[in-house]
Amino acid sequence: MSTPHRPLVILRAAPHPVERIFTPDALARLHDRFTVVEPGSEEDLDRALPEAFAVVGQPDLPAERLERAPGLRALLNVEGNFFPNVDYDTCFRRGIHVLGCGPAYAQAVAEYALGLALDLARGISREDRAFRAGHERYVADGNADAVLLRGADVGLVGFGNLGRSLHPLLEPFRPTLRVHDPWLPDAVLRERGLVPATLDETLARSRFVFVLATVTDDSRSLLGERELGLLPDGARLVLVSRAPVVDFPALMRRVAEGRLLAAVDVWPEEPVAADDPARGLPGLVLSAHRAGGVPEAFLSIGDMVIDDLTLLAAGLPPARMQAAAPELVGRYRNRPVG
Amino acid sequence: MSTPHRPLVILRAAPHPVERIFTPDALARLHDRFTVVEPGSEEDLDRALPEAFAVVGQPDLPAERLERAPGLRALLNVEGNFFPNVDYDTCFRRGIHVLGCGPAYAQAVAEYALGLALDLARGISREDRAFRAGHERYVADGNADAVLLRGADVGLVGFGNLGRSLHPLLEPFRPTLRVHDPWLPDAVLRERGLVPATLDETLARSRFVFVLATVTDDSRSLLGERELGLLPDGARLVLVSRAPVVDFPALMRRVAEGRLLAAVDVWPEEPVAADDPARGLPGLVLSAHRAGGVPEAFLSIGDMVIDDLTLLAAGLPPARMQAAAPELVGRYRNRPVG
Amino acid sequence: MSTPHRPLVILRAAPHPVERIFTPDALARLHDRFTVVEPGSEEDLDRALPEAFAVVGQPDLPAERLERAPGLRALLNVEGNFFPNVDYDTCFRRGIHVLGCGPAYAQAVAEYALGLALDLARGISREDRAFRAGHERYVADGNADAVLLRGADVGLVGFGNLGRSLHPLLEPFRPTLRVHDPWLPDAVLRERGLVPATLDETLARSRFVFVLATVTDDSRSLLGERELGLLPDGARLVLVSRAPVVDFPALMRRVAEGRLLAAVDVWPEEPVAADDPARGLPGLVLSAHRAGGVPEAFLSIGDMVIDDLTLLAAGLPPARMQAAAPELVGRYRNRPVG
Amino acid sequence: MSTPHRPLVILRAAPHPVERIFTPDALARLHDRFTVVEPGSEEDLDRALPEAFAVVGQPDLPAERLERAPGLRALLNVEGNFFPNVDYDTCFRRGIHVLGCGPAYAQAVAEYALGLALDLARGISREDRAFRAGHERYVADGNADAVLLRGADVGLVGFGNLGRSLHPLLEPFRPTLRVHDPWLPDAVLRERGLVPATLDETLARSRFVFVLATVTDDSRSLLGERELGLLPDGARLVLVSRAPVVDFPALMRRVAEGRLLAAVDVWPEEPVAADDPARGLPGLVLSAHRAGGVPEAFLSIGDMVIDDLTLLAAGLPPARMQAAAPELVGRYRNRPVG
Repeated sequence: MSTPHRPLVILRAAPHPVERIFTPDALARLHDRFTVVEPGSEEDLDRALPEAFAVVGQPDLPAERLERAPGLRALLNVEGNFFPNVDYDTCFRRGIHVLGCGPAYAQAVAEYALGLALDLARGISREDRAFRAGHERYVADGNADAVLLRGADVGLVGFGNLGRSLHPLLEPFRPTLRVHDPWLPDAVLRERGLVPATLDETLARSRFVFVLATVTDDSRSLLGERELGLLPDGARLVLVSRAPVVDFPALMRRVAEGRLLAAVDVWPEEPVAADDPARGLPGLVLSAHRAGGVPEAFLSIGDMVIDDLTLLAAGLPPARMQAAAPELVGRYRNRPVG
Repeated sequence: MSTPHRPLVILRAAPHPVERIFTPDALARLHDRFTVVEPGSEEDLDRALPEAFAVVGQPDLPAERLERAPGLRALLNVEGNFFPNVDYDTCFRRGIHVLGCGPAYAQAVAEYALGLALDLARGISREDRAFRAGHERYVADGNADAVLLRGADVGLVGFGNLGRSLHPLLEPFRPTLRVHDPWLPDAVLRERGLVPATLDETLARSRFVFVLATVTDDSRSLLGERELGLLPDGARLVLVSRAPVVDFPALMRRVAEGRLLAAVDVWPEEPVAADDPARGLPGLVLSAHRAGGVPEAFLSIGDMVIDDLTLLAAGLPPARMQAAAPELVGRYRNRPVG
Repeated sequence: MSTPHRPLVILRAAPHPVERIFTPDALARLHDRFTVVEPGSEEDLDRALPEAFAVVGQPDLPAERLERAPGLRALLNVEGNFFPNVDYDTCFRRGIHVLGCGPAYAQAVAEYALGLALDLARGISREDRAFRAGHERYVADGNADAVLLRGADVGLVGFGNLGRSLHPLLEPFRPTLRVHDPWLPDAVLRERGLVPATLDETLARSRFVFVLATVTDDSRSLLGERELGLLPDGARLVLVSRAPVVDFPALMRRVAEGRLLAAVDVWPEEPVAADDPARGLPGLVLSAHRAGGVPEAFLSIGDMVIDDLTLLAAGLPPARMQAAAPELVGRYRNRPVG
Repeated sequence: MSTPHRPLVILRAAPHPVERIFTPDALARLHDRFTVVEPGSEEDLDRALPEAFAVVGQPDLPAERLERAPGLRALLNVEGNFFPNVDYDTCFRRGIHVLGCGPAYAQAVAEYALGLALDLARGISREDRAFRAGHERYVADGNADAVLLRGADVGLVGFGNLGRSLHPLLEPFRPTLRVHDPWLPDAVLRERGLVPATLDETLARSRFVFVLATVTDDSRSLLGERELGLLPDGARLVLVSRAPVVDFPALMRRVAEGRLLAAVDVWPEEPVAADDPARGLPGLVLSAHRAGGVPEAFLSIGDMVIDDLTLLAAGLPPARMQAAAPELVGRYRNRPVG
């Protein structure tokens, strides 16, 4: 599917260094199939647009700039979030593919979320700390609050890329999986063997809760004081999507009271303040926004980009990155990751 | 399947307190179906034997004592290990079922082993410690050595109860699973989609290794200096079966050198010495023999005991506990767990 | 998500009677949420367009007609094929969702394809005929050419909706699954544990081949004399997508020669001629375009339509029907099903 | 694990010809590892017994003959049924392994049972016959009674080898699986995600029923007039275990009345009488005891035998064939297969 004429691709990998998302081999393939321009300035970018077939990355693309790129066929976002610096309406009207790399991170986040849940289930990091401090507890003594994932009631708040990647990892535990996702009809969940549920029911009946929802105006503080209060005592909550979805003071209060165990990967402010009392909570597993950004995930972005550019150049639809939904692309309120 | 005549069951739950392995409800069912004797002394035990239908637990049962129990149909071990204080030959010759409760722990160990592997893959407990100490690293910075389980080369050393429980948990990650188990023909593994391999090959080609073998004279120090040297740099080793299978000084040396990350649940001496340098190794996840002994696992022992006693009393074969193999029961060298 | 203002939906269910795709209950829900117009004539249709929110069905919609419908948000095709009577370019430019109901049939086709493959593997219908004719063969005698699906080499030609639905049904047989799909990059297949392969390799190495490709100018007679000749003797071929993908005379010749067993659900001309010699071929399982059109599949179309209309009316993206790809919608050469 | 001293194995493959269960390569391996005697007469057998390590096959072995074989370690039945011509009590008392080859057939039977169920679900063989007779019905016309397996209520009567092999094949259809097996405690089923149920409930709530129970005095006519009457109208019944489990006249009557569709592989008398009206029932799929006896299954018997003999000669427990349960071996009432 390589093309003798090599279409022009504008590459603006930021916030990534190019080599984080492309192996040397992948970069060679990209250059082999496409004329690649890495604009060093906004002027460079403007100069490249008239011939551009695709833009990899997320430079500012207001309407007037898109007008300069009559042959633009695709915008391949390598950051994982869509920001409002692009005129998406114009893209959709012109049939320019707006593609996201969310799927690149989903497996990494899913594996991490499962790891966090198993840590909470069994106290892995807590007991490792105790062992290092010389007061480990052997066999049953350290397991008083240990629970199994098998057969457990598990709730998923949100069922997008993350939920879809986590679901197969949970299946062999044969849990009862309740899912709350207001963007999905029940049938989509039922077909997968999941139980559609309201948010309240999902929380009230789950021993494990995975918070996987993205931030919109609707989902901000979705899990507030009242909602967290619905969780059964001893529940384990894993937060790997976005901090604003949860009322953090309420969450930390409940963990401090010992009513909840939680693993938190995303924080209202990053870096977290040096004196944040969360750093000392025994019932918390603390993680510094590490769920998705592993080397294999980053490098899969480059592979996805090349695969989809190649398909598009051959007149075929993209198959690896994720098309932005016109209805949703303007709703996301995620901020850039530091 | 309840029986009007209630056969006599001798219950010696040690080392467990009875209530650890029987819920009040389960205990009531046991008493409802059977005449239960809990001997307070060896003399009590001797007095109960002549009428005994089954012994739950593992009191000393040499040949002469078994002779006192002509109606004995089953010995239900609730400890997870078979010790040489029973004349197993006599049991087998007389058709007395010798049953173990290993399956009760297998799911707990499997979930824990997966949790440890994901911790090693992603540095969960290490980075939690860093976060508490105020030097957490955000996003990609803390993920330099993070790897995915998906598609990884994974080795299992031993494929008994633990391997069989772990296998389905690993399947959704679509790993290449190499298995070394000298007690199993290749076909048993191939039918499950596993790759039979020598120990050397299993070690040399695996990014993750799970040590699941029990201790026999053959498996003592199975993973010695030479074998551990076969592991690729950066491999992650999870040890959840028995300590004597591994040469501990060699293992700790490799972890200290940063060539290996390891999670260790079983130790040559327990409790571990207060000044054991293992307590300070950053590449280690330390765990105090906690893999199997969780409340749900203990309580499932009681359920298994009642289910199998009920089947046996109805003239049916046991279906939940595991029959000891005459060829193997004398080979185990596991010591009692403190 | 019901709306006080009930948007206008034009319903033209043909070729289905309305009650085939909507249960009475579903129809009531549709009418409850939307103002439904079933135009009896083209003029009725024209009159409804100016207020239309969505069109369910596939009436002629050239550019000039779409112009009459400024508020049109979606075109929900209930037929399973996209025909050229709609100006898709205009739809895409205006952001009108073009949705297909292919997923409604995919499970039915997948189950049927597996049933046909198992029939071919074991001679189920052939031996049923023999039994009725009084010359059945017992036990091993009738099983000389019987093969297992477990562990077999299996090829999929095409991996769209049908392949994606068939794949999980095949997984527990642990086959080696080679897939040929020129529209998909290898990574899409590898992530699912499938082996990407050329068409020749897929055919030459498979004991079972499922032909699942749709008709385009490129796939017409994709399986010709030469390609069918690559199949190993005794291979079993299941054709459930579209007849033009296969050179029928060549296929029938090979079945007649006993080199191939085949199950055929779609035919170059339907109905098949009364004197078509295929009707007498012992190595064939004959089926009259029955793979997808089962009552449950038809009724799921109505449910999908209602779910997606409801989402669209709430400003959300559709989640059940399948968005047509602008690159592909003009390529399909499927004809209407009789 | 080959042994310099080659233990003596008595091979009496009947009712199979040796080459049905051993490939030439397997036979060579057998001879390489063991001294193989194929006794041509009862006297030959008697002469071989004093040195025999194992007997492959099922010759008459009353107590007095077993006495002649003091070194006998195993009896490897290659027939799939245990008959009363062996003194099993003596075998068990002496610790002689009594091994069956049931697992060799289980996958073949499971695949066949699924094929039969899909045939009944969709009318595959019925419509193939119609097509050959020139009155096929296209698309929806032939599908009025077609149903999906996905999400269906499915009942399993018996959950031994066959059920355990069928279960994973059914899982991707996400059925509700009710199981009736009086030899198993509920927990064994629940752990696998199955619903334990009474026979009546299993029948009354299932759209598909698989009859997988073996014959004992208790299971004879387990499915009688009353029980078959519990099945919902339009249910599909697959019988692949043993004929005596079902009241055949009652079954045939219900099929003739069109209340039930059934696939029958085992018959009260085989061969079935030439004028048996079952031969003409449209609602029946007729099969001549073909479910298990496929070439791959037969050949796996030989492999199992060699693997387990090799393990036994190395002092290890068998791992592939199935140990007979002392409680059950005397209960089976299966007759030899013609």
